[in-house]
Amino acid sequence: MRYLPKPLEQLIQALCAFPGIGRRAAERIALYVVEKDRESGRIVAQKLVEAIESIKFCKICGGFTEFEICNICLDKNRLQNILCVVERPLDIILIERTGVYRGVYHVLGGRLSPIEGVEPEDLRIDELERRLQEQKVEEVILALSTSVEGDATAHYLVQKLKPYGVRITRPGTGLPVGTHLEWADELTISQAFELRRPVE
Amino acid sequence: MRYLPKPLEQLIQALCAFPGIGRRAAERIALYVVEKDRESGRIVAQKLVEAIESIKFCKICGGFTEFEICNICLDKNRLQNILCVVERPLDIILIERTGVYRGVYHVLGGRLSPIEGVEPEDLRIDELERRLQEQKVEEVILALSTSVEGDATAHYLVQKLKPYGVRITRPGTGLPVGTHLEWADELTISQAFELRRPVE
Repeated sequence: MRYLPKPLEQLIQALCAFPGIGRRAAERIALYVVEKDRESGRIVAQKLVEAIESIKFCKICGGFTEFEICNICLDKNRLQNILCVVERPLDIILIERTGVYRGVYHVLGGRLSPIEGVEPEDLRIDELERRLQEQKVEEVILALSTSVEGDATAHYLVQKLKPYGVRITRPGTGLPVGTHLEWADELTISQAFELRRPVE
Repeated sequence: MRYLPKPLEQLIQALCAFPGIGRRAAERIALYVVEKDRESGRIVAQKLVEAIESIKFCKICGGFTEFEICNICLDKNRLQNILCVVERPLDIILIERTGVYRGVYHVLGGRLSPIEGVEPEDLRIDELERRLQEQKVEEVILALSTSVEGDATAHYLVQKLKPYGVRITRPGTGLPVGTHLEWADELTISQAFELRRPVE
């Protein structure tokens, strides 16, 4: 690759670490920046550093924030007595995008996975229990992955949270909305059939 | 979008300026960086700045380089009597990748386009003539876009370079018509070079 100046080659290699960016996409971005739009490159570099340096995890829910406590936890209009448990900070953003949920969140930091060596003490379960002890919570929604690990984590949490007498739910599983059966995998289809409900 | 901390939102918007990166891809990258791999983010930021600050255009051929003169122009093993004329610095990289070409390059900086207001004086044609005057060149390969503008540019250059009595060729058929080199695969580019033919 000696036809590529070293700083360009290094930039391309660095970009390949980003998700969804292969060699070709990285080359396209790097060459675009140096050839046509150095200003965008400069802005991205600056915004990367700013985000890296300023984004922390909320002391209460564990979600992304630039402050100590995130905007959702601070929001007086959110229902503080409904907790939605998610695996990752990213999940909060995915749920918020729908606008359907008005409660608050709790980030576990992953899911139980003996194979990957993720044990209960690796997750923010103590913090979750502390929140149940300290504030009046009526419902805990376990918005975990619909996978063996997600199910195992949900099962563990149900046992763990039983003493608090709180209502525990999981989002419905089944066919994604707006698609055809063709695009759903077999497991999803069989779950959707098992969990079928009467139509009024 | 108030559920996204401001530095994250700004990073996402900045990333959208890159080619091939839409809103969803930008979100994926931004969230990946802050959640999982701040170090890659830091490296990309650093390499972006390094590339932007160090990549210049070769004083001879106009290609990318971190020095005054690029490695290709300095390379004693390259045939200095064959000049390949390309539109953009990027094209050099695309041709070099095939390994089929052993001469040197000349970047025009675009192609003639009355519609876009690109006139001969906007291209590095004087510099090309100067090279033909100053060094012994036996062949000029016009590796321009296979488009109306590319053809017009080739036609213009053929007239312009006639007095120098140099052999003028264009890469052979094989390049898909109506597109830019950027979209051709390596095999097509190398075949086109092997099958290049003289221009009347």
